[in-house]
Amino acid sequence: MTLVLHNYFRSSTSTRVRAALNLKGLDYDYVSYALLKDEQRGAAHLALNPQGLVPTLVTDDGALPQSLAIIEWLDEVHPEPPLLPADAWGRARVRSLAHIIALDVHPVNNLRILKHLETEYGVDADGKAAWFRKWAQAGMESLEARLSSEAETGTFCHGDTPGLADLCLFAQVLNNGRFGVGLDAYPTIARIHAACMAMPAFERAAPANQPDAT
Amino acid sequence: MTLVLHNYFRSSTSTRVRAALNLKGLDYDYVSYALLKDEQRGAAHLALNPQGLVPTLVTDDGALPQSLAIIEWLDEVHPEPPLLPADAWGRARVRSLAHIIALDVHPVNNLRILKHLETEYGVDADGKAAWFRKWAQAGMESLEARLSSEAETGTFCHGDTPGLADLCLFAQVLNNGRFGVGLDAYPTIARIHAACMAMPAFERAAPANQPDAT
Repeated sequence: MTLVLHNYFRSSTSTRVRAALNLKGLDYDYVSYALLKDEQRGAAHLALNPQGLVPTLVTDDGALPQSLAIIEWLDEVHPEPPLLPADAWGRARVRSLAHIIALDVHPVNNLRILKHLETEYGVDADGKAAWFRKWAQAGMESLEARLSSEAETGTFCHGDTPGLADLCLFAQVLNNGRFGVGLDAYPTIARIHAACMAMPAFERAAPANQPDAT
Repeated sequence: MTLVLHNYFRSSTSTRVRAALNLKGLDYDYVSYALLKDEQRGAAHLALNPQGLVPTLVTDDGALPQSLAIIEWLDEVHPEPPLLPADAWGRARVRSLAHIIALDVHPVNNLRILKHLETEYGVDADGKAAWFRKWAQAGMESLEARLSSEAETGTFCHGDTPGLADLCLFAQVLNNGRFGVGLDAYPTIARIHAACMAMPAFERAAPANQPDAT
């Protein structure tokens, strides 16, 4: 199977997918779109994904956008190592943890939203950083509260192997660093993030290690 | 199995889950939190869900927050009628459609974001409606482009039975109506929404038909 990932080094949804591909041991071709130049809104990428957002994974079956849909698909067609637990309640827990970040933090802080705050309301760089921090901190607090209190938390978000929630946590923590959201207030998240970074599959997925990194 | 849905009539994530429960033919108890009074941030609800967002489904296994995690869990433990296709690529397609709304539209237009625009930047009601419309229209355009061009689209988003993407579409279209985002520009979405509304499972899930509707 040929896999081509259309993405951008700094996009945290792209980082999630790169780490998932690496954990599965899957090779892929890397195509980059400079989001600051709106290249993802060009005709070539819109033909793959009318939404004009990265990432899109092109597979032998077709083009698949949306990072969580890509990761769930990868886990179904390449089940080893699994990115979701074997039991339904465990899968529900992992998805509910992942979605704190993937639904309630990342979309609100996406580049297109920050750009719009600037153009529509004149929000400056400090104001955009404050916006980012507000929603990132709310999500991190919720995630920390759950991870630190729930018995299923292990070395990673659910037990001792990394999965969907760790992919989201990992990418969000790296993104948070750009806006001054550190890990001091979130010891469980910090510990899990360190466990991710210690694995080559995650480390190779980090923005700084991509061919289009600036 | 006893199911208790902690939710709010107007919350579109709650509407998704209510319609899923109805499609599965599952009875549930209804507990309401008035979001405008921040009741979901009270101690009782925070004990169930530290994130303080609705909906949370309380099951015999525990409390499960996050609407999409709830729907995926319902589909795993009560597989009939299915809310996702039988094939992996079909499931990927349906998730990727659902996530256009669930990740890239709804979170950006959530009540807490609109409130923050008002308190932080003095955005008035017209400005908040313009914000809502911008992101809702972007999502609807992307969704319409895919639904109208992809062969898998049928009476519903994927074939002729309703599923995860239809749950998201249905709830978002109802929410859009409150902010003047109509369906004229989105004929495929309009047709699918009408097909949903014609089913009692969806109609009974609509905000206007809940006990806490005002």
